[in-house]
Amino acid sequence: MRDLLQRVADGDISPAAAETQLRGYVTGEAGRFDAARVARTGIPEGIITDGKTTAEVAALALDAVAATGRALVTRADDATTTAVTEAVADEFPAATIDTNPRAGTVVVHASDFERPDLDASVGVVTAGTSDAGPAGEAAVVAREMGLVVDRIDDVGVAGIHRLFDALERLREPDVLVVAAGREGALPTVVAGLVDAPVVGLPVSNGYGHAGAGEAALDGMLQSCTPLSVVNIDAGFVAGAQAGLVARAVAAGRSEE
Amino acid sequence: MRDLLQRVADGDISPAAAETQLRGYVTGEAGRFDAARVARTGIPEGIITDGKTTAEVAALALDAVAATGRALVTRADDATTTAVTEAVADEFPAATIDTNPRAGTVVVHASDFERPDLDASVGVVTAGTSDAGPAGEAAVVAREMGLVVDRIDDVGVAGIHRLFDALERLREPDVLVVAAGREGALPTVVAGLVDAPVVGLPVSNGYGHAGAGEAALDGMLQSCTPLSVVNIDAGFVAGAQAGLVARAVAAGRSEE
Amino acid sequence: MRDLLQRVADGDISPAAAETQLRGYVTGEAGRFDAARVARTGIPEGIITDGKTTAEVAALALDAVAATGRALVTRADDATTTAVTEAVADEFPAATIDTNPRAGTVVVHASDFERPDLDASVGVVTAGTSDAGPAGEAAVVAREMGLVVDRIDDVGVAGIHRLFDALERLREPDVLVVAAGREGALPTVVAGLVDAPVVGLPVSNGYGHAGAGEAALDGMLQSCTPLSVVNIDAGFVAGAQAGLVARAVAAGRSEE
Amino acid sequence: MRDLLQRVADGDISPAAAETQLRGYVTGEAGRFDAARVARTGIPEGIITDGKTTAEVAALALDAVAATGRALVTRADDATTTAVTEAVADEFPAATIDTNPRAGTVVVHASDFERPDLDASVGVVTAGTSDAGPAGEAAVVAREMGLVVDRIDDVGVAGIHRLFDALERLREPDVLVVAAGREGALPTVVAGLVDAPVVGLPVSNGYGHAGAGEAALDGMLQSCTPLSVVNIDAGFVAGAQAGLVARAVAAGRSEE
Amino acid sequence: MRDLLQRVADGDISPAAAETQLRGYVTGEAGRFDAARVARTGIPEGIITDGKTTAEVAALALDAVAATGRALVTRADDATTTAVTEAVADEFPAATIDTNPRAGTVVVHASDFERPDLDASVGVVTAGTSDAGPAGEAAVVAREMGLVVDRIDDVGVAGIHRLFDALERLREPDVLVVAAGREGALPTVVAGLVDAPVVGLPVSNGYGHAGAGEAALDGMLQSCTPLSVVNIDAGFVAGAQAGLVARAVAAGRSEE
Amino acid sequence: MRDLLQRVADGDISPAAAETQLRGYVTGEAGRFDAARVARTGIPEGIITDGKTTAEVAALALDAVAATGRALVTRADDATTTAVTEAVADEFPAATIDTNPRAGTVVVHASDFERPDLDASVGVVTAGTSDAGPAGEAAVVAREMGLVVDRIDDVGVAGIHRLFDALERLREPDVLVVAAGREGALPTVVAGLVDAPVVGLPVSNGYGHAGAGEAALDGMLQSCTPLSVVNIDAGFVAGAQAGLVARAVAAGRSEE
Amino acid sequence: MRDLLQRVADGDISPAAAETQLRGYVTGEAGRFDAARVARTGIPEGIITDGKTTAEVAALALDAVAATGRALVTRADDATTTAVTEAVADEFPAATIDTNPRAGTVVVHASDFERPDLDASVGVVTAGTSDAGPAGEAAVVAREMGLVVDRIDDVGVAGIHRLFDALERLREPDVLVVAAGREGALPTVVAGLVDAPVVGLPVSNGYGHAGAGEAALDGMLQSCTPLSVVNIDAGFVAGAQAGLVARAVAAGRSEE
Amino acid sequence: MRDLLQRVADGDISPAAAETQLRGYVTGEAGRFDAARVARTGIPEGIITDGKTTAEVAALALDAVAATGRALVTRADDATTTAVTEAVADEFPAATIDTNPRAGTVVVHASDFERPDLDASVGVVTAGTSDAGPAGEAAVVAREMGLVVDRIDDVGVAGIHRLFDALERLREPDVLVVAAGREGALPTVVAGLVDAPVVGLPVSNGYGHAGAGEAALDGMLQSCTPLSVVNIDAGFVAGAQAGLVARAVAAGRSEE
Repeated sequence: MRDLLQRVADGDISPAAAETQLRGYVTGEAGRFDAARVARTGIPEGIITDGKTTAEVAALALDAVAATGRALVTRADDATTTAVTEAVADEFPAATIDTNPRAGTVVVHASDFERPDLDASVGVVTAGTSDAGPAGEAAVVAREMGLVVDRIDDVGVAGIHRLFDALERLREPDVLVVAAGREGALPTVVAGLVDAPVVGLPVSNGYGHAGAGEAALDGMLQSCTPLSVVNIDAGFVAGAQAGLVARAVAAGRSEE
Repeated sequence: MRDLLQRVADGDISPAAAETQLRGYVTGEAGRFDAARVARTGIPEGIITDGKTTAEVAALALDAVAATGRALVTRADDATTTAVTEAVADEFPAATIDTNPRAGTVVVHASDFERPDLDASVGVVTAGTSDAGPAGEAAVVAREMGLVVDRIDDVGVAGIHRLFDALERLREPDVLVVAAGREGALPTVVAGLVDAPVVGLPVSNGYGHAGAGEAALDGMLQSCTPLSVVNIDAGFVAGAQAGLVARAVAAGRSEE
Repeated sequence: MRDLLQRVADGDISPAAAETQLRGYVTGEAGRFDAARVARTGIPEGIITDGKTTAEVAALALDAVAATGRALVTRADDATTTAVTEAVADEFPAATIDTNPRAGTVVVHASDFERPDLDASVGVVTAGTSDAGPAGEAAVVAREMGLVVDRIDDVGVAGIHRLFDALERLREPDVLVVAAGREGALPTVVAGLVDAPVVGLPVSNGYGHAGAGEAALDGMLQSCTPLSVVNIDAGFVAGAQAGLVARAVAAGRSEE
Repeated sequence: MRDLLQRVADGDISPAAAETQLRGYVTGEAGRFDAARVARTGIPEGIITDGKTTAEVAALALDAVAATGRALVTRADDATTTAVTEAVADEFPAATIDTNPRAGTVVVHASDFERPDLDASVGVVTAGTSDAGPAGEAAVVAREMGLVVDRIDDVGVAGIHRLFDALERLREPDVLVVAAGREGALPTVVAGLVDAPVVGLPVSNGYGHAGAGEAALDGMLQSCTPLSVVNIDAGFVAGAQAGLVARAVAAGRSEE
Repeated sequence: MRDLLQRVADGDISPAAAETQLRGYVTGEAGRFDAARVARTGIPEGIITDGKTTAEVAALALDAVAATGRALVTRADDATTTAVTEAVADEFPAATIDTNPRAGTVVVHASDFERPDLDASVGVVTAGTSDAGPAGEAAVVAREMGLVVDRIDDVGVAGIHRLFDALERLREPDVLVVAAGREGALPTVVAGLVDAPVVGLPVSNGYGHAGAGEAALDGMLQSCTPLSVVNIDAGFVAGAQAGLVARAVAAGRSEE
Repeated sequence: MRDLLQRVADGDISPAAAETQLRGYVTGEAGRFDAARVARTGIPEGIITDGKTTAEVAALALDAVAATGRALVTRADDATTTAVTEAVADEFPAATIDTNPRAGTVVVHASDFERPDLDASVGVVTAGTSDAGPAGEAAVVAREMGLVVDRIDDVGVAGIHRLFDALERLREPDVLVVAAGREGALPTVVAGLVDAPVVGLPVSNGYGHAGAGEAALDGMLQSCTPLSVVNIDAGFVAGAQAGLVARAVAAGRSEE
Repeated sequence: MRDLLQRVADGDISPAAAETQLRGYVTGEAGRFDAARVARTGIPEGIITDGKTTAEVAALALDAVAATGRALVTRADDATTTAVTEAVADEFPAATIDTNPRAGTVVVHASDFERPDLDASVGVVTAGTSDAGPAGEAAVVAREMGLVVDRIDDVGVAGIHRLFDALERLREPDVLVVAAGREGALPTVVAGLVDAPVVGLPVSNGYGHAGAGEAALDGMLQSCTPLSVVNIDAGFVAGAQAGLVARAVAAGRSEE
Repeated sequence: MRDLLQRVADGDISPAAAETQLRGYVTGEAGRFDAARVARTGIPEGIITDGKTTAEVAALALDAVAATGRALVTRADDATTTAVTEAVADEFPAATIDTNPRAGTVVVHASDFERPDLDASVGVVTAGTSDAGPAGEAAVVAREMGLVVDRIDDVGVAGIHRLFDALERLREPDVLVVAAGREGALPTVVAGLVDAPVVGLPVSNGYGHAGAGEAALDGMLQSCTPLSVVNIDAGFVAGAQAGLVARAVAAGRSEE
């Protein structure tokens, strides 16, 4: 520990990063940021914008970069994206910032951050154009966990030949995230055609009765083919769960 | 009218049948039985057992036979089936009685009743064994309306090759009733493969959240491919609606 | 196929239209557009605006015109309508554009597009002024499928004499779409008076408990007279389903 | 008060009736029974069986007879009916007992009880046979309040000519209770045809989505014609509310 | 009828008013306006703004004034109020216009319109300040029906002494509308203290689970004391239903 | 610890009780039984019968007696009560067993068990006879925690004078549990009249929409007067929470 | 009373304060303000902004200050905060105003107002940054009741070591309010670790199915460890209920 | 193929098994049984009893044994278990039958069936005794897929030390199924402590609002720590999904 403190004294490591190593989490003004869990699971701690002020999100992003070398903001609108971008540019001018408006994500890497690189893949499948948001969020998370991500888009069940045209690609990844709104039947059909685990990701399109993704969630929970499910629009969770699965496969592959 | 009354006086026609012709409905002790609608639409008036006593159901069945030459009881359990059968045997010894325990139906034809015979067909499709009840009810209704009925069973989406093996038969009927429980995706997939109208029939299997057919109903209402829907387990309604469609097609065919 | 490719080379047909004929769908930047289904069912593929950006909608509309000679955008607000109109005017200056703000639709016909013309009719019935949106959407779809459309407005059940004044017109079409909000009783009453199939279209007016169309949907699903139902405000689906029925009737009529 | 106590001492009046007069309610072993309210509103206090043991119901019935000369038990099954009947026969051998299995009611009148007789009428209307239970309960309550009750049965909206045949009778009562299950449209249509206040009584038949009376309740709450509503199967409440209205009319009539 | 047409020819009566007298309703561009029902029940036909454009509302208001001498717009925001006011001022400069922003109502009387004047009263009771909107709507409707209206405000159950201070006033009207949000207990308590019929009016305040008036509606439907209920925020319906009751009482009073 | 093990060796203490003291919980065949929490909070660990077999309940009861000298079974029907009683009589013949069929509880005290005796009181209030089950469960739990319990019954809001007659008793306890079904308004009214904390206990009577206690729960969550709530029929939780409050008050009293 | 009136005459006390002392509540133009209840329970009457206009809130705040020397506005946005602040500054220039934008509260103390000072403490615990609003509201209420408040933040269950680091502080207060959104598990875990009563405060973050706090509420109602619950975001209620408990403990402490 | 038919001719293989190999599924009288999917995914096709008659279940079990050498019946009550056992004993006397009443499963292995044996493990964790049913079902499925299964029971969050005592065992399996009812917080807490993927399995205990597993499902969907979920009581699905994950890990391990 003395060694660590010496490095703090020498300015080799920030106090936040040191606290992170010592306690497992760091406490900023806008809240606590958990780093031990990141280390253990490989899942970057997502900073979700719901219920927080823009300033709180930006402050948490800085804490995250300081503590773990990376920040991942989700459900970011334009104002939040700008606020985070400016705060990071100010505090960590050498960091790289990757924004994805369709997915609503902002990813920040400190200059010395190295993303892991794992020998396993996650397929992210969409039924249609309007699934792009949550699917994009899932893809970003899986990529940040170090996995190879394959996006397979527009394979909805309404015109099922589209699905069969994509069958070979669907059978390649080690695990699939399948996003669908409306009646949400795509994960059921896909899981009947592949042998990898499928994580269903219901999307909040659809309207009227059981709209906003409820029908899709209901259908995935009742699916005739076994699959597991995350909440509506929970792209982060789907990406992280698929990431954990792929990570386990990669670990299996690297065992001797 | 005098003619009619004369026939009543001569015993050629029952008072109930006469009242039916004069007022459009007949009033028995257990309720009214609507005959004009039967004549206009060809849909036999179903006597649903819910909320009625066994005795009331049997009485209504007798009224129906007296007024229109036919009775159709739905959701009949063993006790009701026996009660209706005995009452009919007693009152109309020459009538034929057709019971279907899996569909929960009892169909009675007076000795002189002639079922219509129309030049159009209804396909009744099921996803699995547990859809047999409501699908059977739909098939009985369509058949009573005089249509050709084709049952196409066990073509669930979980193993989608089953569906493609049946594709030719699915494309033949003039209209389809597609029954499915659980996630209820079958009507969506079928409607994407045929060009006839599809009536989705959600079935009350499934369990847990959105069980008892709710997920199936939700999914059909949100279907990406256009289809219309009836209530959960509403086999009678699905059969009648498909029957009306096929009837209109048959009428088109018979026009010159 | 060589023939087709030659026509592409000669500029007689766009690459999109050629891909459409070869694969059944065309892939643009904003998503895939399914053309085979259009050909089989006669239903124009609707481009629904929910969950898509304005730019994505406009791009999909261009793809649709290129692939099938027609585009149908639904739930279009003013901004989307303008964006689509401008994009089409730019890319297909000879196309005709038909916008309907109350129905929220934009219909584009390429200069050489010919709408089918079928010998069957769809009645579109409303209970009141606030049903105009979804009912209009249904009428547009049925008309695009080549059917004769009759609008019968303001025949709500609250003042039932209005309904009887319209009875003759209600009994003429081959199939009816009946739109109603609030308690949604109109389809039930109409279906008891006509012998054509009725498709109930619940509308999202109404307020408080079971508002936003839920009561109307519930009532139609529980209707005492057989009818089938589509989701709340699903004018496109109702129009397409009624269109499929009328199309089958027209096919019957044209058989010899 | 001394006078009252003297009558207790003389055995002219039971202690329960005396307590009732003094405190407004009487406390038995099974609970309290409110008499002041009965006196003020004319509504007999209903002893609902839900959540009580058979013994508790019988005990409360005896308390009611002792305190107010009358007992009204609702939702009574056969076992409860027998228990109440036997307890009353034992304790008040001169009382008259009126049981109605279809309505689920037991009405007890002490030998000296005189039902009021008011100059106003309540119409109780049903859509079909399965509305008989709650409608019967409503009729019993209104009758016990001293009103003239007219039962108008089987006037469902599916065959609307039935309704018009009954129009004159529907326009006679001072207030109407209209019971309906399934889609529950009858009160809406009736209220559009009469000028008396209508109390909608949703009935728990119907099945599948929004079954068990929910669709009927929803529809009545959203009715296009003004009416008020009670809970599903709340025949007692509907009868009491209609009774209060008719009572007010009768009071108006008797004013000079 | 010739007489009527002569008056149209002479300009003594508008074509709309004439159509109204002949057919019972008038058809303008924005919809139909029912006048026969107004005459029969005394309830002014409310023009609810939900689901209509501002222009449609204004047009319907003009139709209403032309046909019945009065217009009643509900749920009017500032823009609608202005549009109606301007349209009326333009078309019927001699009309009187009464706007009530808290109740969201606009009432227009043609110069020769005479509101009825009935010998009965409606009490409109609120639990708190935030019930003012729907309660105000109810009061306006009852007043337009010609009844005496008494507003009794701020008698919530949380501080029950407020209620008892108002007890005498609560016992005077012939019928009560009791508005309450949150837990909605006020109608239950009031109905236990008065002998007039009570119409519960749930109000959409409250938050979180069962907020927006659902808890209030639920509680009123389950009330231990008999009362009837209207939908959440349905001030118009509550006022009309109470008005019908009071009208019946007034009729009783005026009988000889 | 050696001392403890010596006592086990000497048979002064059972192995289960020793394990309890050492680990804080004891593991039997039917599950684990937590004793540390009992010691800390004074709340006996309730053995709820839902989802367990009768044999499992009896086994857990024996574990509880062995580990803490006491068992408290809730929601016990007759079969469970008998099974527990027999198992205890067999294993702990000197134990006292207290069964309460209305509350559904079985309480077992080992011969040497001494219930605590605290200087604070809990009032348990019911609106009517059908609240007796959950209210009884709450009373049993509070009593087992060592508190003085006062039952105040039948003070429903429908006849509010009953409530005022009980006002003095309502103001005495240190904390109140107020049980109510139907519209559940009693806790709101009571909390407006006393200054002790009120725990609302919704009861699953009531029927139709929002029946089975949902309306009562909704109303208590929306209460205008501050109170906290437990789940429907959660008598155990209400009693335990009130017990914790009273225990804290008693602790305050015993501080010097 | 004459003494009081003399003080009014002398200007020593406002008419509002006098009315408050005489009747228990004061009636301003915007509604009634209950003061007796404040005196009895120590809970300041919260002026909730929902369903009221800004002007009504400001008027009620002035009434509150006049009547009880204090005003507490909750759910105040910026506009309301400004309106209240300006109105108070105008009318009571010597008052102190304490605004808390994150909690949405405005607290006004008249110059001579003295907050009580009680010997008991309330812990207010949050799971994360987005619980700050309702938790802050609870803390303000408890503080205004005169209690010591300890805020313990960011102890969510996802990283459970954070919770154990805070265990000592969690065990100190006499009662805890535990705020949590999403799955809302924190109160369950905390209540298993402390012996004080826990009031669960569900927070309306979370998204998709059972979002907006419903999952948190559901989980707290089903908690395995006994706790009581308030509605979603009901910080005022949680603070007041915890305040009542702590007040009772303080009273116990001050008894001799 | 001729080879296969020769083996059928020789009686080495049943016609059912041959059809299975040729078409991928076998059609018996009670429905179709899918074998290709079993081969691809390793998940035995579960024969769920819901919605099927006992005879249908037994027939499907025989088909399954004939086609794949194994049958797995789930949700079997005593009658079904007996029917299956007897049918199998009759038809396949050499088969082994393994029944598990607590899990509701019947597993049949033909005499020559060999269960796979994979190098990966699934942990099945329960919160309490009443989770045993669905957890047992999950364990059976995972075992049939050839995985090592570790049951870790009674580690509920209410007494969180139980959880920490099991921490090492929780961290060993390659994937975890975590079953919990009531508030369902266990998967959230566990997923915060391990680095393997967690599949949450909500269990239908719990009562009152959000009972029957809904609160548990809601909480898992909203979990702060990433996890995926299956439907309430969907032990089969959870076991199959965890099995697919472990199978992928085992495949990774066996790659070179």
